[in-house]
Amino acid sequence: MADLFKHEADFEDRVRQSFARQKAMETIGASLTLVEPGTIEIEMPFSADLTQQHGFLHAGIISAALDSACGYAAYSVMPSDAAVLTIEFKINLLSPGKGERFLFRGSVTKPGRTIIVADGQAFAFDADGSAKQIATMTATLMTVSGRTDIRG
Amino acid sequence: MADLFKHEADFEDRVRQSFARQKAMETIGASLTLVEPGTIEIEMPFSADLTQQHGFLHAGIISAALDSACGYAAYSVMPSDAAVLTIEFKINLLSPGKGERFLFRGSVTKPGRTIIVADGQAFAFDADGSAKQIATMTATLMTVSGRTDIRG
Amino acid sequence: MADLFKHEADFEDRVRQSFARQKAMETIGASLTLVEPGTIEIEMPFSADLTQQHGFLHAGIISAALDSACGYAAYSVMPSDAAVLTIEFKINLLSPGKGERFLFRGSVTKPGRTIIVADGQAFAFDADGSAKQIATMTATLMTVSGRTDIRG
Amino acid sequence: MADLFKHEADFEDRVRQSFARQKAMETIGASLTLVEPGTIEIEMPFSADLTQQHGFLHAGIISAALDSACGYAAYSVMPSDAAVLTIEFKINLLSPGKGERFLFRGSVTKPGRTIIVADGQAFAFDADGSAKQIATMTATLMTVSGRTDIRG
Repeated sequence: MADLFKHEADFEDRVRQSFARQKAMETIGASLTLVEPGTIEIEMPFSADLTQQHGFLHAGIISAALDSACGYAAYSVMPSDAAVLTIEFKINLLSPGKGERFLFRGSVTKPGRTIIVADGQAFAFDADGSAKQIATMTATLMTVSGRTDIRG
Repeated sequence: MADLFKHEADFEDRVRQSFARQKAMETIGASLTLVEPGTIEIEMPFSADLTQQHGFLHAGIISAALDSACGYAAYSVMPSDAAVLTIEFKINLLSPGKGERFLFRGSVTKPGRTIIVADGQAFAFDADGSAKQIATMTATLMTVSGRTDIRG
Repeated sequence: MADLFKHEADFEDRVRQSFARQKAMETIGASLTLVEPGTIEIEMPFSADLTQQHGFLHAGIISAALDSACGYAAYSVMPSDAAVLTIEFKINLLSPGKGERFLFRGSVTKPGRTIIVADGQAFAFDADGSAKQIATMTATLMTVSGRTDIRG
Repeated sequence: MADLFKHEADFEDRVRQSFARQKAMETIGASLTLVEPGTIEIEMPFSADLTQQHGFLHAGIISAALDSACGYAAYSVMPSDAAVLTIEFKINLLSPGKGERFLFRGSVTKPGRTIIVADGQAFAFDADGSAKQIATMTATLMTVSGRTDIRG
């Protein structure tokens, strides 16, 4: 994976520092568990505080973690002075967000100077460690340069 | 609005009771502020705990509130014994999630026996009360009947 | 509508000239019937040559006309020397593409220097002139400047 | 691939017969080149009649072929008496539709009794046979049973 996409030497530091500033990720208990050029993984344990009405992980929380995974996958292949913005994403919920912990993977599908397309997959893990894909995302990200109000 | 869509007499109770079970909405500080047949509004104050790396409301949190607004818009026009599931949604982020408070409106675009399409709009309000649309969503919801593991 | 969006004086000429170069629109029998700044309408008669397996208008043909409507809605508010590219779109098919003729409307939801978001609606008309919405689209368009291989 | 998804013995006949009724596919010059349970490929040569304003294959035509590929991928794993309807799809255009011929692959990502999710990829081939991915789609399909007005 590490050789698929052109990237700056400081990509991992930039991703980790920016992710650390995402208070929403801390609030939902999500951690960065893989940082490769063009591929990011985020993991989180189940929490009853993040559920919808049937007691499963809320689709919006799945979206939040997948959006961060896709966004940082794109960010990891951007120039060092760029910031990343999510233009849009689409998510399909494939199975209920039922499990002990969750993994969210974002991967760059198409790099680009201005527009980057990334795909995301969310998995739920049972107590016995068996995994089930619960969601799939396609996200469009934008490279933003030269704006002083946003960085990272 | 109240006459646009066929609905059961107990629609408001069902929506309010189901929303109250969504712990994720409580966690992000969101409240139900309008319940009409086919239209739902959810509001929440800004919170630094829900931000992305630039200090704005995280796109995933915007998605969570809009998904609930669209889901309950659909649910409000479903039969009393049905449950609602989100099949998929797409969100475009139009402007940064910057404001003192936020409003999320979900409206049914196309009712149906099995599949309901709803559209959502998110607005940010400044300290002076001026509003700006920050996101637009289209969601596909499904009516689920006769399953005992999910209700509402 | 004409005052909603900033636009160049030559917007209508540019839209009409570019549309005339879209051979795909000619092939499916589509004409440009409204050109306002930020709003475009395209109409076409039903044709058995454009159907799916049940004899209705193929979802992809509906997409083609809506994509052009959204793309030209965006293009109508771009600078005179810019070209428009579709980054992505999402379409929900609300009802079968059954009718004597069809109208496709594209409207700018959010203008922008680089990224423009437009929404589209497709309608089918019966022999008696009654209309039914058959599809809804959200499209993300990009302004491209300074490339000599594409124009319009 | 053939063993990934449960399917009826007559899946290939049903797919081929239904595809043959899609006049839109004939009109755009598309042929069915692979029919496996859960995977469909459609191919077509470039035609100037299907272009957008820059002379590339129109995004809507790419959508039409990918929608058919995803729809038949879903249909191939449905019961023999079912019909398939496209609920919605999202497409990202990754590169211009420039090439001598095009291949559109649809694959089931998540089978289901009522709802099936399929992903699509479009490729352009140069004169020298080198391929480039030009689009990616996610589509939501529905199994429809017991309706006499639609079949296949």
